[in-house]
Amino acid sequence: MSDSVTPAPATAVLRTLDDPDYRAGVVDLLSVIAYGELSGAFATVDDASRAPRLDHKLALARMARMDFDHYEELAARLREIGAEPESSMEPFTAAIDEWHRRTPPADWYEGLMKAYAGSAIANDFYAEIARYVDPETRALVERAVGADEQDAFVKQVLAEAIAQDPRLGSRLALWGRRLVGEALSQAQRVAASHDALTALLVDDGSGVGADLAELTRMFERLTTNHSERMQALGLTA
Amino acid sequence: MSDSVTPAPATAVLRTLDDPDYRAGVVDLLSVIAYGELSGAFATVDDASRAPRLDHKLALARMARMDFDHYEELAARLREIGAEPESSMEPFTAAIDEWHRRTPPADWYEGLMKAYAGSAIANDFYAEIARYVDPETRALVERAVGADEQDAFVKQVLAEAIAQDPRLGSRLALWGRRLVGEALSQAQRVAASHDALTALLVDDGSGVGADLAELTRMFERLTTNHSERMQALGLTA
Repeated sequence: MSDSVTPAPATAVLRTLDDPDYRAGVVDLLSVIAYGELSGAFATVDDASRAPRLDHKLALARMARMDFDHYEELAARLREIGAEPESSMEPFTAAIDEWHRRTPPADWYEGLMKAYAGSAIANDFYAEIARYVDPETRALVERAVGADEQDAFVKQVLAEAIAQDPRLGSRLALWGRRLVGEALSQAQRVAASHDALTALLVDDGSGVGADLAELTRMFERLTTNHSERMQALGLTA
Repeated sequence: MSDSVTPAPATAVLRTLDDPDYRAGVVDLLSVIAYGELSGAFATVDDASRAPRLDHKLALARMARMDFDHYEELAARLREIGAEPESSMEPFTAAIDEWHRRTPPADWYEGLMKAYAGSAIANDFYAEIARYVDPETRALVERAVGADEQDAFVKQVLAEAIAQDPRLGSRLALWGRRLVGEALSQAQRVAASHDALTALLVDDGSGVGADLAELTRMFERLTTNHSERMQALGLTA
């Protein structure tokens, strides 16, 4: 998450899981993140098996394990609040599987870029929604989607490779734009068909959630964060 | 490990890492197991991605994570005794990679069978060698190669599928024989080119290690254990 995110509104704490609509939204949020982490773990292992160096392979395997641990924590919380993760994730598998199908990395570097920039867009979006949920859910989401040391490793490997090979940089810049486009289109698909999830984020008149101005700022933040990630690699978004 | 394994000879405790030949053997042993666990984790994730059911996918992902954790523990111990796992595993990568190349599972069930019966042969063999090493090394090896709850899960899935489909059973029985053959041929390759490792197991006149009679019994145990695993699935080895 970027520093530009403003503090959560105080009203967020008023929402509790006793409210069935709110609970449905939280189940959706945790489920979509859980399936994202699970399929991300598989995608990362796939990258790892392409890694030309053993130390890179190991770093990616550790990243996949961390994603899988996030999945397990989210699934445990879903069970705790009475949801069955295998069925509560079901409504989200098509969009996330489609995202992976539409963004097959052509090589090891595209795989790294997908892990670095692609997943980060989704994670930023979940962190934005988490601003409007109860503190316990928020903390769980932030643990799952937060950057970690493995992200720093991926960034470093990419930055070094790009610095040495400008043609790789051009290709990865294009690939980064493709990743954003596909991520946004799957995110829209998810948002359009999951009212309870959307209701977590958007103020429906209750005074909790983002209004149109805030939603606009949110999309600006998502875009800015992506641009900053690309710039950190010496690329233009 | 089968119950038929006899207790470690008392002489095993006399061997210490101060002896450079013994230390080289221990480094080899931990390294070959470490690389086996690492490549096993990748193979298991590959199977998981083929799993037709989400609960099976998750069970295999947990198994892969456990293999990877074993890798991490073995690698940490290698560093502790002054070896660099990435280079100490190097002499074993060809044989283990070749084992995976020569036994590509044609489908999800063959993948499970490879995890169930194939890895078990290697693990039984490592457990046999571990009978002759110092207690700390032995405990570490036994943790890494021991059966766990995920093995029980794989066995159950296989047994149920075979009970329902005799043709699958015939195919998997053949596949099991192929796995044993390939495992033995790679094990011979490893043993023939790694004297320090072989010296852990075979008595070279020092009184520590297996003599020819004991080696014969060891191969009988390996074969018996494999047959028992096949029988547990209703198959003939």
